[in-house]
Amino acid sequence: MTNSRIEHDSLGSMSLPKDCIWGIHTARAIENFPISGIPLNLFPEFIRSLAWVKKAAAQANRSLHVLDAKKADVISEVCDEIIAGQHHQHFNVDMIQGGAGTSTNMNTNEVITNLALIKMGFAPGDYTHLHPNDDVNKSQSTNDVYPTAMRLAIVSQCEAFEAAQQRLVDAFAERAEAFKDIRKIGRTQLQDAVPMTLGQEFAGFAATLREDIAIIERLSHLLLEVNLGGTAIGTRVNTPDGYAELAVAKLRKVSGLETQLASDLVEASSDTGAYVTFSGVLKRISVKLSKICNDLRLLSSGPRSGFHEINLPAVQAGSSIMPGKVNPVIPEVVNQVAFQVIGNDLTVTMAAEAGQLQLNAFEPVIVLNVLQSMRILMQAMDTLCTRCVTGITADVEQCEGQLENSLVLATRLVPHIGYEASAKIAKTALSEGLSVTEAAIKLGIGTLEEMADYLA
Amino acid sequence: MTNSRIEHDSLGSMSLPKDCIWGIHTARAIENFPISGIPLNLFPEFIRSLAWVKKAAAQANRSLHVLDAKKADVISEVCDEIIAGQHHQHFNVDMIQGGAGTSTNMNTNEVITNLALIKMGFAPGDYTHLHPNDDVNKSQSTNDVYPTAMRLAIVSQCEAFEAAQQRLVDAFAERAEAFKDIRKIGRTQLQDAVPMTLGQEFAGFAATLREDIAIIERLSHLLLEVNLGGTAIGTRVNTPDGYAELAVAKLRKVSGLETQLASDLVEASSDTGAYVTFSGVLKRISVKLSKICNDLRLLSSGPRSGFHEINLPAVQAGSSIMPGKVNPVIPEVVNQVAFQVIGNDLTVTMAAEAGQLQLNAFEPVIVLNVLQSMRILMQAMDTLCTRCVTGITADVEQCEGQLENSLVLATRLVPHIGYEASAKIAKTALSEGLSVTEAAIKLGIGTLEEMADYLA
Amino acid sequence: MTNSRIEHDSLGSMSLPKDCIWGIHTARAIENFPISGIPLNLFPEFIRSLAWVKKAAAQANRSLHVLDAKKADVISEVCDEIIAGQHHQHFNVDMIQGGAGTSTNMNTNEVITNLALIKMGFAPGDYTHLHPNDDVNKSQSTNDVYPTAMRLAIVSQCEAFEAAQQRLVDAFAERAEAFKDIRKIGRTQLQDAVPMTLGQEFAGFAATLREDIAIIERLSHLLLEVNLGGTAIGTRVNTPDGYAELAVAKLRKVSGLETQLASDLVEASSDTGAYVTFSGVLKRISVKLSKICNDLRLLSSGPRSGFHEINLPAVQAGSSIMPGKVNPVIPEVVNQVAFQVIGNDLTVTMAAEAGQLQLNAFEPVIVLNVLQSMRILMQAMDTLCTRCVTGITADVEQCEGQLENSLVLATRLVPHIGYEASAKIAKTALSEGLSVTEAAIKLGIGTLEEMADYLA
Amino acid sequence: MTNSRIEHDSLGSMSLPKDCIWGIHTARAIENFPISGIPLNLFPEFIRSLAWVKKAAAQANRSLHVLDAKKADVISEVCDEIIAGQHHQHFNVDMIQGGAGTSTNMNTNEVITNLALIKMGFAPGDYTHLHPNDDVNKSQSTNDVYPTAMRLAIVSQCEAFEAAQQRLVDAFAERAEAFKDIRKIGRTQLQDAVPMTLGQEFAGFAATLREDIAIIERLSHLLLEVNLGGTAIGTRVNTPDGYAELAVAKLRKVSGLETQLASDLVEASSDTGAYVTFSGVLKRISVKLSKICNDLRLLSSGPRSGFHEINLPAVQAGSSIMPGKVNPVIPEVVNQVAFQVIGNDLTVTMAAEAGQLQLNAFEPVIVLNVLQSMRILMQAMDTLCTRCVTGITADVEQCEGQLENSLVLATRLVPHIGYEASAKIAKTALSEGLSVTEAAIKLGIGTLEEMADYLA
Repeated sequence: MTNSRIEHDSLGSMSLPKDCIWGIHTARAIENFPISGIPLNLFPEFIRSLAWVKKAAAQANRSLHVLDAKKADVISEVCDEIIAGQHHQHFNVDMIQGGAGTSTNMNTNEVITNLALIKMGFAPGDYTHLHPNDDVNKSQSTNDVYPTAMRLAIVSQCEAFEAAQQRLVDAFAERAEAFKDIRKIGRTQLQDAVPMTLGQEFAGFAATLREDIAIIERLSHLLLEVNLGGTAIGTRVNTPDGYAELAVAKLRKVSGLETQLASDLVEASSDTGAYVTFSGVLKRISVKLSKICNDLRLLSSGPRSGFHEINLPAVQAGSSIMPGKVNPVIPEVVNQVAFQVIGNDLTVTMAAEAGQLQLNAFEPVIVLNVLQSMRILMQAMDTLCTRCVTGITADVEQCEGQLENSLVLATRLVPHIGYEASAKIAKTALSEGLSVTEAAIKLGIGTLEEMADYLA
Repeated sequence: MTNSRIEHDSLGSMSLPKDCIWGIHTARAIENFPISGIPLNLFPEFIRSLAWVKKAAAQANRSLHVLDAKKADVISEVCDEIIAGQHHQHFNVDMIQGGAGTSTNMNTNEVITNLALIKMGFAPGDYTHLHPNDDVNKSQSTNDVYPTAMRLAIVSQCEAFEAAQQRLVDAFAERAEAFKDIRKIGRTQLQDAVPMTLGQEFAGFAATLREDIAIIERLSHLLLEVNLGGTAIGTRVNTPDGYAELAVAKLRKVSGLETQLASDLVEASSDTGAYVTFSGVLKRISVKLSKICNDLRLLSSGPRSGFHEINLPAVQAGSSIMPGKVNPVIPEVVNQVAFQVIGNDLTVTMAAEAGQLQLNAFEPVIVLNVLQSMRILMQAMDTLCTRCVTGITADVEQCEGQLENSLVLATRLVPHIGYEASAKIAKTALSEGLSVTEAAIKLGIGTLEEMADYLA
Repeated sequence: MTNSRIEHDSLGSMSLPKDCIWGIHTARAIENFPISGIPLNLFPEFIRSLAWVKKAAAQANRSLHVLDAKKADVISEVCDEIIAGQHHQHFNVDMIQGGAGTSTNMNTNEVITNLALIKMGFAPGDYTHLHPNDDVNKSQSTNDVYPTAMRLAIVSQCEAFEAAQQRLVDAFAERAEAFKDIRKIGRTQLQDAVPMTLGQEFAGFAATLREDIAIIERLSHLLLEVNLGGTAIGTRVNTPDGYAELAVAKLRKVSGLETQLASDLVEASSDTGAYVTFSGVLKRISVKLSKICNDLRLLSSGPRSGFHEINLPAVQAGSSIMPGKVNPVIPEVVNQVAFQVIGNDLTVTMAAEAGQLQLNAFEPVIVLNVLQSMRILMQAMDTLCTRCVTGITADVEQCEGQLENSLVLATRLVPHIGYEASAKIAKTALSEGLSVTEAAIKLGIGTLEEMADYLA
Repeated sequence: MTNSRIEHDSLGSMSLPKDCIWGIHTARAIENFPISGIPLNLFPEFIRSLAWVKKAAAQANRSLHVLDAKKADVISEVCDEIIAGQHHQHFNVDMIQGGAGTSTNMNTNEVITNLALIKMGFAPGDYTHLHPNDDVNKSQSTNDVYPTAMRLAIVSQCEAFEAAQQRLVDAFAERAEAFKDIRKIGRTQLQDAVPMTLGQEFAGFAATLREDIAIIERLSHLLLEVNLGGTAIGTRVNTPDGYAELAVAKLRKVSGLETQLASDLVEASSDTGAYVTFSGVLKRISVKLSKICNDLRLLSSGPRSGFHEINLPAVQAGSSIMPGKVNPVIPEVVNQVAFQVIGNDLTVTMAAEAGQLQLNAFEPVIVLNVLQSMRILMQAMDTLCTRCVTGITADVEQCEGQLENSLVLATRLVPHIGYEASAKIAKTALSEGLSVTEAAIKLGIGTLEEMADYLA
């Protein structure tokens, strides 16, 4: 009896443990959405962003005299603790939820309220002193708070994401430098084509990933346009004059991120284009990583009956049955992460397309997928960097031996003797097991001296 | 010092806590794959299936005299405990892993071995008495154990899945019966079309989902074809004569599932078609659930400025700012689950396409996505059933009022007066705010009596 | 003046060339939907199916005495000509169209009407004698005609599709037989694993594709359930008693396909699950074909610096710059077809999900994508069969040489000396360039005799 | 006899019609790839781009003295004719082809050669005077020509694409202005939420699409980085010194597009990231268009039993059975285009991921899908603009009547009487059929005067 308290909402009442830090709206959400088993607190970056928004709103409300200074201050104080990483265990609603994020917003409102009540000397649930909706959510709606926090959560991970990209780029570039004099066969369509160096190949990996750092940087800016202050549908209902502008200014300061108020708040309330674009960039990165890992696996195939131009570092025994087998397990896990991110991108796309009228109610599954994709990509890039790329060595003998043994030099003949004669030489060399020069001489197309000259 | 033990593998050695139940291969895997944060033990159905396979293998090895009876029995005993739900905390590798599942297989081998060693009175890690590879993995390879366990894990969830489908079908059918006399507008392309009953609409929801129970049942059978005994690539290397057939027979008994040995073990070792098809069925179900939830949200739109033919039960306050608003949060969460499953299906597709030569190394991301999709779909169906469908009520006044007020009766005139005259009546009625009969009379196309007759 | 005629609809009137075989609804549709540039007449199988449906409807209407026998007969006669492949040039609306297929249905109604009018001695457009809506479309709606014809169009291509599958299976099986004694390295994760035969590899290709013939056969049956007679929303509005059953019986006879009336016509009017499932099977086939083509490209990589276990037949010069290069162009085109089909499947999925209430208005893009996918897959399978698989030869020397040179035999040692000792041998052999036997002897693990015995 | 000529390649010889403008490589490609039925000449923008590249190459070769001036000039002359739209009928290979575009490149080389030979007074096929490979393809490879032309083909359509976007934006903005004083219900989650104007809603449509014009502009620049001069794999094999830089400079002049030489030509040879990103933007636009069209269909639902706040212009009769029905056929066709583009994006993604080592052999299916997506999106936007948006009218009575009748004003009470009391009022009003003010008075929460004040 004395261990519980009763809370009310428009549906009725509910008993909660007396010192429960969340309230009835959170409790209902936990009952309503036993869906993914992935609670909000697995995404501390999202909780931090919610606290940024709540703090900025409280400060703006205070400045505009619609919220009592003392209330505003205690709200800010609690937000600071949350921003510092405390209290996250109370953010417990499922990441996949109906209601366009209302449950996440109310979970946040309730936790802040009850923590503040305790600070103020009151009991949790004693909302006459501080109210989740009327005070903590003042001048706000889920429909501006939630997407604003989503955007900040994503943007706030970009720096770490780009750093992981950079480390991987650097690792490939360092290997490229180390391999710059190792000559090998270049291949198109898996067929021997023309000579190149192993360094050029690795420099290409570095270059293609380097481009993406700039693109992440550039496109993450799309996410900095927020609709805070638009409230329910972007018409600023229930906000004092100047609130939106002030709240966003406060948010810039609180978060350290260059947020801007969207120019059309009605549009911004339902628009999810920025997530589609950002997720699309994650997909692009995944496509490139997957291609690179396919190449690493191919180039290390063997050890004796494959291309085997490179050795990947062994990080575990390869097989439960085949002794001595070492498998390209790190590239393989990166491939799988790429497939997951590409699947997640489709989920984001479908959720974005499903928005209706003044709101997209499917933002929860969008933010879950974007944050998960970022996280597993970061982990995958770091794993690839530290457990694979930095330890790659070249099989120089194989690289150079294959090149010498190949027919790719025939391409060099084309400017001298034309495409058709060169093709004839290549065909003869292959079918009779000859070198290019031997075949040319046999066919009477060139002398030993001419050939040496052409191929020099 | 005394609190640790040293284990060895082909890469070197590693120190583990003395009583650690897993071994060096698991430890390396945990280091190598800090990817998704989703450990194996979040999927008890998969652990149980692994234990089924290990027990069946041990029994077959015993019968064929390649494994000492005492060893086989202690392995079986440990497997029984795992099957009963014990020891799952030791299954700790990341679900997304390189190596085609080797880490999961070795985690299983090591846990079984060490638990058995303890039972036999030895210390964990004392593999001279029982060896993870030579005994527990005897006659096996990751490449047959892992896909066999994947398939069983999926199939073993089908019964619960179908039961959830059935409950949802029953709920819709029960509502259909309750609504069978409520007449309303049927709509095509969101435009008023012809009359129907609300019962017919709900019966349609039941019917379309009912079909899918049969399809899940039918297609899950594709997964019962296993490659156990094929070992590394399907050539049965390192198995005694008759092992594959016997192991599968044992597996049938141990699991209670009608597994069959695949007819072409080489093909079966790399084939992932069954997952593509099964995931495709989950996608189909998601498409249907999403369409139904879209309809429920549309039919309950309002309360005053929408279709509002039905009321969804209120399960939580709808808004943090708009008082009294009740939102269709349960259908919304189901929509999101559908988008997630459709995204997961793409991940499965890409992973399946990426298989190479004698193996698909990307099975870990396949099994993760299929099991997750099944789980969230089950949760979504149960939530939809218990928190929404069973409590739906009709707004009879709205249903019947809209019908009376509509122009859809004009369709009934076609067999009597032809399409063109009927279209003229409909157009006039709409533009002048008349009823169909009034318009017909005004246009001199029919008398009151005739119209009453046509529309009867 | 005398070269044109005027037609009317509820929007107004329009001038058409006097002898134009289509009418005003078709003309408006051509103006309204200049979208894909892909006209209906690129899909003769769909036009034929529409004519089957119209003929069956006319016959049922005649039997039920709601359509004059003479009218019904001339409609049937025109339909027979269309079924025989005549008049297809008049089916000219864009395959991607709004209106749930109304334009396609009206194009059909108008063409049949005008061709019949000519047969009856009247001028095109003289609809007092035969009317596109009141006669040719009698007892019908786009909403039952169009999906019924879609389903028949797809099913009617299945026989040819399965035949193409069978030819490809046979080609792989024939090559498997030819290659049955060629021993080679089996590979998992692109690493040398254990021995197998090239015949086993090709038999696997045959086996995996063979399974899909049965699946196409089985799942195409889902498409035989039609909603003909349900009219606008499945309530049979404007049909005489018994019409639906009779029309479907007539349709069975006219088409030779085992169509069945759907048990719940309301459900069947909006359900697109069968297309999702069927397209999913096309996706499954594509995934398998793509994997096989990846393997063929890998196995033929080289000619000197790759796996090169097989030769693909040269079908064109490989390069505009590299003489003598022969590329795996046929597998490459099949890969691309697979990617297209997988993309098309997503289009089908999204269109299916977007259905609302009593209809799915997006069926036009569904049927376009399914028919296109079937067509390009059939072409791809035939091309792969005739221009690649049948001409594949083995590089026996390479297959067997690689095997002899490999370390894969170490796996055979496991049952004799255990996993750890075997792994040690494999590792030593690799690092010191020895054979398995040499390494065993050097390490003192086995004698020459023992090794010969173990590896026998 | 006299009507044919014989051509040779490394596979053998082939008879062609004497005056056939293409040669043996094209003829083989037509035989090899009977896949999609979509010939190159359906994409004149691609043919023009190929001619730009060939002309630029000829000019660069001439300047660097590796190609005879007379030959270079006649090549340029022929290219100019092709650029002007002539000769496109000879570009006849299938858009989906193996060989990484070699067939398209050779089709181009052969057509230019034979047209030039005719100009020079020789017979087609008389390649001693001008050779498709040695002259027209000089210093080139398919692997730089084809992707360069792909990129230019896409970029060259961007201006028209952006113009279509702009027209649609303008149409929405014009309607927004016209509707700016019409007050209506704003809806979130399909539930009545708070007031807004119809003008705000349409301004949101304009705003969201306007953003995308800038994004297309910005990201199309990624495509201007070309690898021309890298030849086979980016190592510039078979090009004279300075060729790449000069050829790209010439290309800028010839095409009028700001092409730049990629900084890492090896990377650029295999990289397809720019297509993934560009296709991702087309997907983003599609997602937005689909959402907008969903809204237009919803807002025009009815005419009597839906939201019906707007009227879409009738562009055709809506139904073959339901007289007077007018359907939202234009938004529906745009939805379908969106689904197609999203599916095409997946095809592009998969093809991009499948690149291997120094080349992506799947570029043909990439360029086909990107160009098709652009084309159908442009058509869809123009159709939406001219046949729908410009003719939309408001149902003012419905808009304003619904608002007056609604409970959305309860939100305004929150700052005055708090969330809980406001919710109580809303709930009572709904259940008892009262207005907000009536309910407040009945509950004793406010007087008539107070309520008038709060809601003002």
